[in-house]
Amino acid sequence: MKIINNKFMQGVKKFKGAGISAGLKKSGKKDLAIIYSEEKAVVAGTFTTNRVKAACILLDIENMKNENSQAIIINSGHANACTGEQGLKDAKSINESVAKELKLSSKEVLQASTGVIGVAIPMDKMKNGIKKICSVISEEGGSDVSQAIMTTDTKTKEVTVEINIDNKNVRISGVAKGSGMIKPNMATMLSFIVTDANISKKMLQKVVKSSVENSYNMISVDGDTSTNDMSITMANGAAGNKLIDSENEEFKIFKEALDYVNVELAKKIARDGEGATKLIEVEVANAKDKETARKCAMSVVSSNLVKAALFGSDPNWGRIICAIGYSQGDFDINKVDLNFKSSLGEVSVFKKGKNINFDEKIASKIINNENVVLCINLNDGHFKATAWGCDLTYKYVEINGEYRT
Amino acid sequence: MKIINNKFMQGVKKFKGAGISAGLKKSGKKDLAIIYSEEKAVVAGTFTTNRVKAACILLDIENMKNENSQAIIINSGHANACTGEQGLKDAKSINESVAKELKLSSKEVLQASTGVIGVAIPMDKMKNGIKKICSVISEEGGSDVSQAIMTTDTKTKEVTVEINIDNKNVRISGVAKGSGMIKPNMATMLSFIVTDANISKKMLQKVVKSSVENSYNMISVDGDTSTNDMSITMANGAAGNKLIDSENEEFKIFKEALDYVNVELAKKIARDGEGATKLIEVEVANAKDKETARKCAMSVVSSNLVKAALFGSDPNWGRIICAIGYSQGDFDINKVDLNFKSSLGEVSVFKKGKNINFDEKIASKIINNENVVLCINLNDGHFKATAWGCDLTYKYVEINGEYRT
Repeated sequence: MKIINNKFMQGVKKFKGAGISAGLKKSGKKDLAIIYSEEKAVVAGTFTTNRVKAACILLDIENMKNENSQAIIINSGHANACTGEQGLKDAKSINESVAKELKLSSKEVLQASTGVIGVAIPMDKMKNGIKKICSVISEEGGSDVSQAIMTTDTKTKEVTVEINIDNKNVRISGVAKGSGMIKPNMATMLSFIVTDANISKKMLQKVVKSSVENSYNMISVDGDTSTNDMSITMANGAAGNKLIDSENEEFKIFKEALDYVNVELAKKIARDGEGATKLIEVEVANAKDKETARKCAMSVVSSNLVKAALFGSDPNWGRIICAIGYSQGDFDINKVDLNFKSSLGEVSVFKKGKNINFDEKIASKIINNENVVLCINLNDGHFKATAWGCDLTYKYVEINGEYRT
Repeated sequence: MKIINNKFMQGVKKFKGAGISAGLKKSGKKDLAIIYSEEKAVVAGTFTTNRVKAACILLDIENMKNENSQAIIINSGHANACTGEQGLKDAKSINESVAKELKLSSKEVLQASTGVIGVAIPMDKMKNGIKKICSVISEEGGSDVSQAIMTTDTKTKEVTVEINIDNKNVRISGVAKGSGMIKPNMATMLSFIVTDANISKKMLQKVVKSSVENSYNMISVDGDTSTNDMSITMANGAAGNKLIDSENEEFKIFKEALDYVNVELAKKIARDGEGATKLIEVEVANAKDKETARKCAMSVVSSNLVKAALFGSDPNWGRIICAIGYSQGDFDINKVDLNFKSSLGEVSVFKKGKNINFDEKIASKIINNENVVLCINLNDGHFKATAWGCDLTYKYVEINGEYRT
């Protein structure tokens, strides 16, 4: 696998995109994006498990039963959740407009939205925006897409890789947005992956499901699962490789690359969590079972106390041990080891269920870093899991509690 | 039921207490407390569900198999969790010292602790402290107990009520500490209830279990379940009422009063959560089943986004609806209503699953109050639940992220 760069859509054959300002955001920033495949593509997706689902999610679940899709229209001004019948009507009308401009069936259009909950989309602005955006779609549109899907994100989140399958160069490229309301199941964010790989819909669904499970579903910014989360992967086959329709060697190569793309985007989302100053990586090793590894990792990365301690570079291992304790994972505390790690070094702070003498100052220096790894060894089996999150800061409170009358 | 006052142990017959500084806290503040019944008492307790349990918890679970208990010794300097074999030895030795001073069997002594995790208790200071505290036990010691169990609490948490059972005045009095690492199951805090009611151990266990479920297990400050949580209730029968040994009328009167005491203490804990500026009460009504009501209430009160919004008095109903959405409760969003309420008024903000026009300024003013109630009506059955929490503030981040090298 070759990492091409941190740009979206770079050289993925027959994919085009665009991002514009349609006047949906008060700020005047870009707020409408489109991803378009010139050829029919198979798609696979995962959607929020929140019982309250945005209108576009309900529509997508229906449209994904279709064999092919060719476009995804995304607006970052209005979530279009809790908007009732009108919201669903609007979502359908948006798809019809896009289909008309691009000469597709409206079932071939998918839709994502993020932004304010409960406010109807201003349809006049949206319709004008759709006309405009469909006229400027281009192969160079990837970076505009990445900007236009941002809300409180401070950075764009993009990555492109290349693999060789069946002597053809196959590219996989992804773009995501995150920031707040970020917690797994499905992971409170939007991500879109395009690839020119030739793969069957069934195999694509299979690989996407497992990949999402170990990337977006293992991050937490604030524990809140949004009404609008989705990850959609489109594969249009333009690379010309022999169709991947079983779990063969090519499937494995594709899976590894897709996993890389999704994990990279997940980490970028965690690092750019609202107010975050650092990325927290929790590695749980040697668990009795997979569920225990996942539960322990997610519990630590979701703990407000751990997150606040890491903001202050406080080597407070007690809060970490406490968080695995209430994770509902199955382990023996008397076997547990904990190390703190970063590019500045590694220090052991807890061994076989007990406090050990360690130099607090050195430990604090090690975790006073942009990227901190908490290594939890359960010494109880051979399963592992990694979760990603960020610290809890004054800025998070400011961003989410700034409303003042 | 008559509310006596917000003082612990007021006139509960044959109960005494004390609270002193034993030098366990660096600050020199009171850090050792004892609750003592002159007569043999039956006890019932609930303990943390955290897999990692402090030494005193392991010991108490054992000692509570005993028919009677007469003393609870509490230190607020050291959690004595993650301290291995030595921690358990120390806990046993503490019980033996107390038993010797008070001429009890060490099995009749219970123990609680809170404070730093992973640091051994300085046993010389502790032993001296035990001698000293046993010599100053008195009927007026209740308020010293309430002070000596505090950690980052800013206020003591005490309440005393009186009921009439069988023509006897029966008192129930409780004391608690909370602040951080506060999340149900069992609810991350310490609480001690003393009563002079005459009640069988079996009935006491029954009533305590259900009372804890609807009080401490329905609060959240930060979602972290501590290693040291416990609630212990002691009943010494000194009021002289006929023994309550079935679910009769007297049991019901006792239950109602005990529920009141536990809910009052739970609310005090939530209101005094680390950094909190307001108490948040989430009332879920007309749920299909009890579990749905509980899950929806706890999900909202635990949401960082809801907590941050309320800190800013932001009437952001979308975050509340989103939180019930991912609560895993069973409801139909199209039936849901939401009102904001406080002593300043009530406003409807969401009806039958949809945004309604409401005056944001008025709504914000209503929730700009020390005590905010979020009324969620699921219109889907007749079950209800209430949860309590607090807002998420800069101060919470400061308290928990203040470590600086």
